[in-house]
Amino acid sequence: MDTADRFNDECGVFGVFRNPGASALTALGLHALQHRGQEAAGIVACDRGKFRLERHMGLVDDNFTSQDVIDRLKGDCAIGHNRYSTTGEPALHNVQPLFAETAIGGFAVAHNGNITNARKLRETLRNSGSIFQSSSDTEVLIHLLATSTKATFIERFVDAIRQLEGAFALVALTDNLMVGCRDALGIRPLVIGDFEGSFVLASETCALDIIGARFVREVEPGEMVVISDRGMESVRPFPDRPSNRFCIFEYVYFARPDSTISGLSVYEVRKRIGRELAMEAPADADIVVPVPDSGTPAAIGYAEGAGLPFELGIIRNHYVGRTFIEPSDQIRHMGVKLKHNANRSVLKGKRVVLVDDSIVRGTTSMKIVEMVRDAGAAEVHMRIASPPTTDSCFYGVDTPEKSKLIASRMSVEELTRYIRVDSLAYLSIDGLYRAAGQDSRHDVPQYCDACFTGEYPTTLTDRTDRLPQDHLAFLEKA
Amino acid sequence: MDTADRFNDECGVFGVFRNPGASALTALGLHALQHRGQEAAGIVACDRGKFRLERHMGLVDDNFTSQDVIDRLKGDCAIGHNRYSTTGEPALHNVQPLFAETAIGGFAVAHNGNITNARKLRETLRNSGSIFQSSSDTEVLIHLLATSTKATFIERFVDAIRQLEGAFALVALTDNLMVGCRDALGIRPLVIGDFEGSFVLASETCALDIIGARFVREVEPGEMVVISDRGMESVRPFPDRPSNRFCIFEYVYFARPDSTISGLSVYEVRKRIGRELAMEAPADADIVVPVPDSGTPAAIGYAEGAGLPFELGIIRNHYVGRTFIEPSDQIRHMGVKLKHNANRSVLKGKRVVLVDDSIVRGTTSMKIVEMVRDAGAAEVHMRIASPPTTDSCFYGVDTPEKSKLIASRMSVEELTRYIRVDSLAYLSIDGLYRAAGQDSRHDVPQYCDACFTGEYPTTLTDRTDRLPQDHLAFLEKA
Amino acid sequence: MDTADRFNDECGVFGVFRNPGASALTALGLHALQHRGQEAAGIVACDRGKFRLERHMGLVDDNFTSQDVIDRLKGDCAIGHNRYSTTGEPALHNVQPLFAETAIGGFAVAHNGNITNARKLRETLRNSGSIFQSSSDTEVLIHLLATSTKATFIERFVDAIRQLEGAFALVALTDNLMVGCRDALGIRPLVIGDFEGSFVLASETCALDIIGARFVREVEPGEMVVISDRGMESVRPFPDRPSNRFCIFEYVYFARPDSTISGLSVYEVRKRIGRELAMEAPADADIVVPVPDSGTPAAIGYAEGAGLPFELGIIRNHYVGRTFIEPSDQIRHMGVKLKHNANRSVLKGKRVVLVDDSIVRGTTSMKIVEMVRDAGAAEVHMRIASPPTTDSCFYGVDTPEKSKLIASRMSVEELTRYIRVDSLAYLSIDGLYRAAGQDSRHDVPQYCDACFTGEYPTTLTDRTDRLPQDHLAFLEKA
Amino acid sequence: MDTADRFNDECGVFGVFRNPGASALTALGLHALQHRGQEAAGIVACDRGKFRLERHMGLVDDNFTSQDVIDRLKGDCAIGHNRYSTTGEPALHNVQPLFAETAIGGFAVAHNGNITNARKLRETLRNSGSIFQSSSDTEVLIHLLATSTKATFIERFVDAIRQLEGAFALVALTDNLMVGCRDALGIRPLVIGDFEGSFVLASETCALDIIGARFVREVEPGEMVVISDRGMESVRPFPDRPSNRFCIFEYVYFARPDSTISGLSVYEVRKRIGRELAMEAPADADIVVPVPDSGTPAAIGYAEGAGLPFELGIIRNHYVGRTFIEPSDQIRHMGVKLKHNANRSVLKGKRVVLVDDSIVRGTTSMKIVEMVRDAGAAEVHMRIASPPTTDSCFYGVDTPEKSKLIASRMSVEELTRYIRVDSLAYLSIDGLYRAAGQDSRHDVPQYCDACFTGEYPTTLTDRTDRLPQDHLAFLEKA
Repeated sequence: MDTADRFNDECGVFGVFRNPGASALTALGLHALQHRGQEAAGIVACDRGKFRLERHMGLVDDNFTSQDVIDRLKGDCAIGHNRYSTTGEPALHNVQPLFAETAIGGFAVAHNGNITNARKLRETLRNSGSIFQSSSDTEVLIHLLATSTKATFIERFVDAIRQLEGAFALVALTDNLMVGCRDALGIRPLVIGDFEGSFVLASETCALDIIGARFVREVEPGEMVVISDRGMESVRPFPDRPSNRFCIFEYVYFARPDSTISGLSVYEVRKRIGRELAMEAPADADIVVPVPDSGTPAAIGYAEGAGLPFELGIIRNHYVGRTFIEPSDQIRHMGVKLKHNANRSVLKGKRVVLVDDSIVRGTTSMKIVEMVRDAGAAEVHMRIASPPTTDSCFYGVDTPEKSKLIASRMSVEELTRYIRVDSLAYLSIDGLYRAAGQDSRHDVPQYCDACFTGEYPTTLTDRTDRLPQDHLAFLEKA
Repeated sequence: MDTADRFNDECGVFGVFRNPGASALTALGLHALQHRGQEAAGIVACDRGKFRLERHMGLVDDNFTSQDVIDRLKGDCAIGHNRYSTTGEPALHNVQPLFAETAIGGFAVAHNGNITNARKLRETLRNSGSIFQSSSDTEVLIHLLATSTKATFIERFVDAIRQLEGAFALVALTDNLMVGCRDALGIRPLVIGDFEGSFVLASETCALDIIGARFVREVEPGEMVVISDRGMESVRPFPDRPSNRFCIFEYVYFARPDSTISGLSVYEVRKRIGRELAMEAPADADIVVPVPDSGTPAAIGYAEGAGLPFELGIIRNHYVGRTFIEPSDQIRHMGVKLKHNANRSVLKGKRVVLVDDSIVRGTTSMKIVEMVRDAGAAEVHMRIASPPTTDSCFYGVDTPEKSKLIASRMSVEELTRYIRVDSLAYLSIDGLYRAAGQDSRHDVPQYCDACFTGEYPTTLTDRTDRLPQDHLAFLEKA
Repeated sequence: MDTADRFNDECGVFGVFRNPGASALTALGLHALQHRGQEAAGIVACDRGKFRLERHMGLVDDNFTSQDVIDRLKGDCAIGHNRYSTTGEPALHNVQPLFAETAIGGFAVAHNGNITNARKLRETLRNSGSIFQSSSDTEVLIHLLATSTKATFIERFVDAIRQLEGAFALVALTDNLMVGCRDALGIRPLVIGDFEGSFVLASETCALDIIGARFVREVEPGEMVVISDRGMESVRPFPDRPSNRFCIFEYVYFARPDSTISGLSVYEVRKRIGRELAMEAPADADIVVPVPDSGTPAAIGYAEGAGLPFELGIIRNHYVGRTFIEPSDQIRHMGVKLKHNANRSVLKGKRVVLVDDSIVRGTTSMKIVEMVRDAGAAEVHMRIASPPTTDSCFYGVDTPEKSKLIASRMSVEELTRYIRVDSLAYLSIDGLYRAAGQDSRHDVPQYCDACFTGEYPTTLTDRTDRLPQDHLAFLEKA
Repeated sequence: MDTADRFNDECGVFGVFRNPGASALTALGLHALQHRGQEAAGIVACDRGKFRLERHMGLVDDNFTSQDVIDRLKGDCAIGHNRYSTTGEPALHNVQPLFAETAIGGFAVAHNGNITNARKLRETLRNSGSIFQSSSDTEVLIHLLATSTKATFIERFVDAIRQLEGAFALVALTDNLMVGCRDALGIRPLVIGDFEGSFVLASETCALDIIGARFVREVEPGEMVVISDRGMESVRPFPDRPSNRFCIFEYVYFARPDSTISGLSVYEVRKRIGRELAMEAPADADIVVPVPDSGTPAAIGYAEGAGLPFELGIIRNHYVGRTFIEPSDQIRHMGVKLKHNANRSVLKGKRVVLVDDSIVRGTTSMKIVEMVRDAGAAEVHMRIASPPTTDSCFYGVDTPEKSKLIASRMSVEELTRYIRVDSLAYLSIDGLYRAAGQDSRHDVPQYCDACFTGEYPTTLTDRTDRLPQDHLAFLEKA
């Protein structure tokens, strides 16, 4: 499969405060956020001071739909997490939410993002006696909170997150508070909703839609919202004035097209990307074909912009699980074909504009192009709905190392030859900013676009410091 | 979920003769045919006279991808089957291929379709001492073959299938033959391919594509192809001249859009259906929105025909498994929302043409319409890519009883009010025939369209005869 | 483990007619008969004409104790079976009871024993069209019954079992009858009990004890008891006058010591065996030590007979499951030590009489002797509670081939040296018959003692006839 | 089952230092110690600084016998643990060995016993920021060690265990040390062995026997042995002079009869207990019958002392798992009969001395006596191989609360009537001390006999202090 040839989704978080159906609502919210992480899921519920926790490898639907599980997770507050492993091995120990019993009570947290000084903080905490039970970067947060000398949860929380560097959209739960918090640059998303008078937190608005919650507003960059029986209060834990550097790749690929971020419909942004691309890089072609499903909205936009027919020239098989045994060396494009098949009748003899969201390692693109050509396409013009991805993400997205990113090693010309297309064009960075509602990219960029530019908006302590290795090779499988 | 509100897929069959990778190729073929049945899958391989059989509940990818399984299924011939339960409970006993040790050797068979006199035949066979181990209609075939007094497999096979009534596309395997056979009306599909010189049989051409096999031709209605080391021979087991009554619903919904049937691309037929529909039932609207994924090609066709923009106004969640616990009576359209979400920014204020393939019970349509309205659509014009489905299928498709089919109980006007749309239109039967390459529907129809017309092309013995009940309430779960 | 070095237990059968707790009682009965077979267990219950069947690999306690399972097995009649594989691979297909839907209704059967012309009958049945679904010898019975042309179950049953050769204690169930039947020689045991007015059938009396059923009598050799709502009737299906050739090894090893067979307490017979052995083969020794647990009653008898102290010189570990990885070639008696440990303080410096029930391959005996010597025993005198086992059993006991039976290859003198004991003595065949309540072995023996004498009381058709091989290498694992 | 009516086994520990088969040897050692805990087992291995950990619910044989598991546990040092839950729920989180990554490296520990100030220490540690991941009392040890400010492992270990109160036999592992340690009173056992030049630690000598290790000596009360590449050193961490208060119940019931403790064979002590009991409490009877298996050695001793025959009057079923559904209220002694059956032929008409190790709640004894009477015993004289168990154990044994201990509520006379025996006698406390090698019990007792006397040799802080409750109701099941 080509998950190795994608920027993979990261994590989804969700929370409900004071609603009798808290756990079932959280399961639904996580279902709607499943695209953000399919490796594992967890829910913690709080029932008058008692916490219950369930964490499972696998999909939400496979683990959180039975009456039994929901009954066990009793209580009127709950938070949940979908995980795609960004740090830590795929072991149950790393599945969130994490929970800690502290001197001032129980505390659970779910995290989307990545803490870029986690290993440094871990080292310091360990030296003063903290014992880590996972390889998750998130665990430093609960140790910082547990060892804080402050009197209240909010003070301790503020104390803890001020020490964190990197990207974090957090949902936390104590026995009488739910907290939502974004890092000072607001790299990862977090929205506030209202379900029948109960506050809801979610990574994306599509998770509000599934339960019919009303969208209230986004948690702002550098804001901490504290939800209690008194209502919602806004706290600003960070001394510096926060600026907004939201991850622009959420618009390109991560977020669901039916979500709205910062007032912009993700679907509309993707269609605009397609239109920008049609203007920047037109092609003398017969049809526009998306690489499904992620390339589809941009392809519709491109087709509209270019005045060309939009066609499903590649059919996606949605029943894709594990890798198959290869029965013969003769089978061409084996990996790609498990997921995609060329729609021969559409492609035959046509000059095709192929629209994909990005090129990571290039191997998948190469195979798709070859498959399209084998199906009889006369010409293949590849159009990419984002600039070249030249740099790794350290903010909670699973990306290959820079050296494995083909756009960091090859020019567009080289890549045109490598993937064997008649023409190849990427969207310009300014085009992307325009599609995302800006006039152009400013000197101090309005988004985090490090994967396209290498300009990381935070320091990256764990990348620069040398830190000792762990002694436990792996924690046991459950 | 709305699988209860669909005509569900039936079964897929696949076979490879004399190729060292027979089992792995069969696993790939079944993967490509997964849309035809997700309940269970099985493969039997033959290695110099020894048969090995693996049958599992669940998806092909979950059970037939490990080296272990493929290694156990050794041999250079293999046949496989994907099952969606049409008859028989979802027990391992009913999973195909079935195998029988007979007086003249081992025999395995995989069946797509439904034998409409199976219970009658079963009764007769039981009375003469045959012991049935499953509730599958297919099991009668192996008992007929085992009790036949003919000398050779082919004679026995002919002897057996002549007694069968209904729909059957069969792939069978002995220690030196692979057989493909379609009923006299060719209701269910079966194609012949060539993979590196080895014969391949498959329900659809998309299963040839995945392994890169060349399409040779279709098995003809009433034809039996016998593949041996001498090559392929064609046998005509049925005395009457067969006529072609291929299932027209395969074009509408069952088949994969990238498959080609009788020289017609399924995708193109669906687009033509959309165009016919735009002509027959235009709408004064702003956008055309498919109910994904099955309505998508027809919606593209409609949009083209009507000159309206095609928009993804409903987003599908592909991670849909089991039913969730309902947390609140307030959650509207709960079932539908697990799979679909309205793309608010697209729909808001728009007059929407909604294109779906069919309406079965009507409950899903009603909820989708309401969801689209809740998202702000100004008007909703439902267009159905087939005529009203008024009658059950007895040829291997899982359909509700006639009384549960809403189109058998309501006129289009009543249904328009029931599902609360501004207008509702179905494709005419002649329009469907035109889209499927005919001038119009003839007096002796060119397809089986019983689900639209109630004209069943075969007798339905088990529907008319009263037959005794079984004594085993259920066979144990494995 | 040393299961390979034992005559392994065979099967246990149980049945209850007309009692509201039929399935739960059957589960308890099978629990008490667990020593007769640990590979798999099954129960079929009948509820007013409807049969339900559950069959599972593993122990009764692991599969038949939950409320769910017992609830599913509803009905007031039930039969059950514990299996130790004597024929057929360890697959679910071979687990009993077997069930057949026949022209005259449903029929279930559980079998202890082995049909020595099963393959011959199978061949004949297959040639006339019967399809076999298992490799179990018992399946021939249901096909014979299904293909019988007789009018009633009892007539068909008689028709069927008259064709069977070998050993069989059967419990069968129809919708209004329970049948118990023993072969004409009564090789395997079957007893009748009365639980609160309901008839019970069981392999041994210990299964009556667990539910508190009263022992009524044994089913006689060649007798068929037919239990219906009219009560119990006795049928004599075999034309020849039956003689009693009950398996004498049941007294030596198979039966539980708390069971009573033919009026003799198994425990008392084993103690008498020990006393006979003490008379026949005294030893100048300090203590008598059993190889636990099977040698214990005979050791108590020997100690009493010889006037020597009885000591637990070998301690058994009851938590024995799978074979371990051997960490070092230095570990002596690895296999034996998983189950047994020498009790050093007891053995040190002592002249030890070691009492075991039998010697099969000799390897275990050799290791136990060495372990006892390593623990400091001054002398080891092995006394075996049966004559030399020189011949295989074909009547439902899992024994090695004759060539693997060490007593068929070595004299007592050779074996004394081989297992390195100071002396070795077996019980004489007449001594065994005396312990089992006879004056001596007669010319026409009173028991089946084929494993000691090679005198098989039936013909062994499948041993002598050449029969074709099956084509299915294995049926899939569930 | 009657596990609720026993003093249940506690835990077993094992370790090997510098042997290529360390993990496989540890698996074997744990197999031999399986009687000390059947709920879960774990092994941690260390391979040149890298630790690997496997912990599983269930038996050693079910989880630690595959090549895969042993291969994963690579390294030449390993420690292991069998758990019977004394504190903490039966969750994987509580399974040992525990592991901590500390400032000075990795550290694993396995514990037999119970820390009687664990909750107090936990509260203190939590207040200074330690996060607990289990409900196990043992986890305080790793936090004490991690937060110690001392420079070396040994200093930190000493620092930590000096704060512990209660009973502990510990085996710990760092990347270059294995440590064995017993509390100052040596309540729980720990022995040192030598396997082919590698040091071994084990709870009992039977675990040395299985691998053929030579017994070196016991770890002394209050001693810490530090095993490194330089050999073994002895450290005395406790300032006070330790006295020996070994648990006398290990002789009565816990230890395996083939183990040797403090130079005394457990089997011989049990036989001497029987002989003391025969002297103290003779009975005018015909036979001596043990309640198997734990009463067997004492019964042999009693029979010898009394000059009466020893008989297996109760037969034990070793295939005992879960509780069965009760099919009828009529079934007498249902629970007891799953495990035990009266051997009618032995008991009928006899005056029986019944020997059991102890009476806990009395319910099992009552049912066994009734079962023996039902089998026809003329008289039943119960003899108990220990004094009345009047007090709970807080040193690592799973005992009911004092109020549930029947001997704390009833006199011997009352109990005689309650369990319906003709006579009842316990062994005197001095008799027990004599059997265990002493002249009598001294004023400062030579053993811990708190369960018989209520004299606890340590303070019991967690019993006296009020401590806050945890907030996590349960950690998820794996």
